[in-house]
Amino acid sequence: MTTLVRNAWYVAAWSREIDDELRRFTILGDHILLYRRKDGTVVALEDRCPHRLLPLSKGKRIGDAVQCGYHGLTFGPDGKCTRVPGQDKIPPSAYVESYPIEERHGIVWIWMGEPHRADPAKIFDLPQFTDPNWHAHQGDALHLESNYLNVAENLVDPAHVSFVHPTTLGNSASENVPVHVSTEGETITAWRWIRDAEPIGFFKAFGGFEGNVDRWHYYHLHLPSIAVIDFGSADAADQIAEDDRDSGNRVLALHFMTPVDEGYTIDRWMHLRNTAVDTEEASEKIDAMFRIAFAEDKAILEAVHAEEQRPMKRRPIRIAIDRGPMVYRKRINDMLETERTLDASAETNASFVYHD
Amino acid sequence: MTTLVRNAWYVAAWSREIDDELRRFTILGDHILLYRRKDGTVVALEDRCPHRLLPLSKGKRIGDAVQCGYHGLTFGPDGKCTRVPGQDKIPPSAYVESYPIEERHGIVWIWMGEPHRADPAKIFDLPQFTDPNWHAHQGDALHLESNYLNVAENLVDPAHVSFVHPTTLGNSASENVPVHVSTEGETITAWRWIRDAEPIGFFKAFGGFEGNVDRWHYYHLHLPSIAVIDFGSADAADQIAEDDRDSGNRVLALHFMTPVDEGYTIDRWMHLRNTAVDTEEASEKIDAMFRIAFAEDKAILEAVHAEEQRPMKRRPIRIAIDRGPMVYRKRINDMLETERTLDASAETNASFVYHD
Amino acid sequence: MTTLVRNAWYVAAWSREIDDELRRFTILGDHILLYRRKDGTVVALEDRCPHRLLPLSKGKRIGDAVQCGYHGLTFGPDGKCTRVPGQDKIPPSAYVESYPIEERHGIVWIWMGEPHRADPAKIFDLPQFTDPNWHAHQGDALHLESNYLNVAENLVDPAHVSFVHPTTLGNSASENVPVHVSTEGETITAWRWIRDAEPIGFFKAFGGFEGNVDRWHYYHLHLPSIAVIDFGSADAADQIAEDDRDSGNRVLALHFMTPVDEGYTIDRWMHLRNTAVDTEEASEKIDAMFRIAFAEDKAILEAVHAEEQRPMKRRPIRIAIDRGPMVYRKRINDMLETERTLDASAETNASFVYHD
Repeated sequence: MTTLVRNAWYVAAWSREIDDELRRFTILGDHILLYRRKDGTVVALEDRCPHRLLPLSKGKRIGDAVQCGYHGLTFGPDGKCTRVPGQDKIPPSAYVESYPIEERHGIVWIWMGEPHRADPAKIFDLPQFTDPNWHAHQGDALHLESNYLNVAENLVDPAHVSFVHPTTLGNSASENVPVHVSTEGETITAWRWIRDAEPIGFFKAFGGFEGNVDRWHYYHLHLPSIAVIDFGSADAADQIAEDDRDSGNRVLALHFMTPVDEGYTIDRWMHLRNTAVDTEEASEKIDAMFRIAFAEDKAILEAVHAEEQRPMKRRPIRIAIDRGPMVYRKRINDMLETERTLDASAETNASFVYHD
Repeated sequence: MTTLVRNAWYVAAWSREIDDELRRFTILGDHILLYRRKDGTVVALEDRCPHRLLPLSKGKRIGDAVQCGYHGLTFGPDGKCTRVPGQDKIPPSAYVESYPIEERHGIVWIWMGEPHRADPAKIFDLPQFTDPNWHAHQGDALHLESNYLNVAENLVDPAHVSFVHPTTLGNSASENVPVHVSTEGETITAWRWIRDAEPIGFFKAFGGFEGNVDRWHYYHLHLPSIAVIDFGSADAADQIAEDDRDSGNRVLALHFMTPVDEGYTIDRWMHLRNTAVDTEEASEKIDAMFRIAFAEDKAILEAVHAEEQRPMKRRPIRIAIDRGPMVYRKRINDMLETERTLDASAETNASFVYHD
Repeated sequence: MTTLVRNAWYVAAWSREIDDELRRFTILGDHILLYRRKDGTVVALEDRCPHRLLPLSKGKRIGDAVQCGYHGLTFGPDGKCTRVPGQDKIPPSAYVESYPIEERHGIVWIWMGEPHRADPAKIFDLPQFTDPNWHAHQGDALHLESNYLNVAENLVDPAHVSFVHPTTLGNSASENVPVHVSTEGETITAWRWIRDAEPIGFFKAFGGFEGNVDRWHYYHLHLPSIAVIDFGSADAADQIAEDDRDSGNRVLALHFMTPVDEGYTIDRWMHLRNTAVDTEEASEKIDAMFRIAFAEDKAILEAVHAEEQRPMKRRPIRIAIDRGPMVYRKRINDMLETERTLDASAETNASFVYHD
């Protein structure tokens, strides 16, 4: 059974990944052609000619349209066929699916569900994207051979940092500090404060702390697969309140997880910060530290995924620190159940095999 | 369900590919051992010892016979076992299948159906093979990761050349010229004339035409998978008749498509021509142009095959230029249906699993 | 249906392959973590944390225990969990399987069946391991992409040496000499004497024989997958009796075949000899000859395995020389049938899929 939620906005690409060229992206198992019109707006089409199935990404641009590389059928940015060489009439079945697209803050969003359900108001946003006191910086697109649920679960799981990231994002001071979990709407939050402890590697290198700090980690997981890690530190002597985090060194690490298919996920990550907002050098320092940490996650998550493919004699155990992941899996299962109900009531979902 | 027609003569190899060595070829999913007897004639045997299944191609020649490399069972060129080391009596089950073989014009033909149905009179032939006014030249063995139906269909489809081969075999002059399709016996023909137009790259380089030409393309597809492309050009001023093509520059491009299995095809191609018959330089020029064009086909046909393996929500559409391919697919389906009926009436087709 | 016998002692590794590091081995399809305690004894644990399934081999040593690399769950050498970070209570389901291990003569043995059936008295042994008149030498771990039944069968099959190893272990003198087969308890023996014949390559190079010899081959196959090849030569003039083999040049070649899974086997081989016991040079000469011969076997056995995966129209034939292999396959099938009966009567074997 699929683990993929279709009725959601996903990050298709950073804006900088898309230009005039015809490029194929794979999202939720769909091959999708992405390119920019001459006016700069992004087009997303089913990457398969309805005639002989050649990917349109192997064809060529004719103005804002795409010409198939096999027999020259031509499709506009809305997916409708505008030319069938060798005949005058264009059959109504000559079209490719088009996907709703929105572009904001350097991010290209795609709606993977039924187009009429696409509501741009539901696209993830943060006031800090446009706040002059904050600096936003796009990182990489991390490829993981792992189901997205493993990747997302890892981001509502503050407990792993002590063991997976001992030199960067965690240290032994946090091993036994309990984690709080709450949910609000489509967002699950797991958090904890570690008070009056040695700073972690990240804030030693970045914040310049020397004495003990109060440190916080808020893992906000927006269903189905966007994570905001709000973490930071303040001098322990300041004894800052939980809602006064902006007075400390605060970083928002964002993870936009796009399932390529059931066994492959792309995690596009970026970060925003309320200090050193004028210098790209800080961005690069943070990138470098994140790259170390996320490579550690990748190794773990790919090994976990590989084990999940093997036979199991016993059900995996759940422990106290799993509250965030357990709530997350439960909510995803509810979303999938809702989609199965929608599918069952639709009549357009007949599928068939071509060679018969 | 299989797409492979068994009761047919296929090209197993160019004559030059087979010598004294034991070599494995795979045709219609069968592993076949091919080698030459001392008198030069070709032997084709099932490439699997009936004892412990070792491929005989891993054994060695003993005169015209083959000795298995595991326990020394020896098989004559007719497939009958002539020696079982360690015992005097040879059990009747000690044999390998042998395949009917014919060799003509430097081509080795193999019959893949029931041996008693093999009729050498039905092997593909052309009078031009032995006509002194014509020159024949063998090209390459092009390997394609695509079902043979895609490869063959492409050769009864004159419309694709404008888009796939714009620099060699087609140009935009032909994009909208209608295609005629007719069938006669086991041969489907799609053809068109493009009158008084700019010559294509091929005949610019090869024929030396400078002004406009009349150009023809006849795509003869002999079931199940041999194509003869009769194409050429003559000065437009000559206004030659359709059946007077020998007065122009005429080339016959042959494609012998041998299915290796459902997802892999070898296309051995060659060409014959009625001009420049004395010079190998012309052959090499033609080879070079064909290699460019067939690499373009290969890219398209492999991408189409890959897409066919993926789930499909809609049936592919058919358009006006598909008449040749549609007739071809229909005829192949008829042949396959006939073979299924033959199989159902045979009692010898029991198959079983070895480890049970 | 599985071909793997679980209730048996297998060679997990040569002693020299295991040290303080956490290393993964795969045996009968199980991933197993092997390492040495500080006192040098070997630990074998299921290589999968029961929490999020991360292989424990990706964690780290904490004294004699292992700490999972994801959330820090810690397991003692007996497999019991000793720590769950974030909680005080350790649930009874927090454990990994441990495997009975014995180490003797530089060989690490593992019991792959139900632990309560493990009886160290049944581990394969030979008096020559500790006999001062004999010299033992460990060879390599030969990896074969072939089911272990093919590998083992090959070692109760004296007939193949004439054809597979013509330059080392066999020659044409033995092609037609009949093979005797007998069984005693869990051991099947196939043997033959070739009297008054040219020495094989092995004993030309190693024994220094110049004239004719009496040569023997005893293939003892201990179920399920240990082979002892007792082979040697003596001057033909001595006319030695069958049970006086120690008066000749005698070698015991041992093969410990460990199934990795249904399609992959590791054959750890070693040899003992009653001559040149003081010199390592002789060991290296024997190793070198064996490496040639076993590479020949590997090529055959991998090709046989590959053919077994393909469809078969006819049942393979059996011939006179197959008596050893046939008895062997029959006995293995009896063992597998016994294990299926045990499994059916056990209630603890429920298996389930994780993602449901």
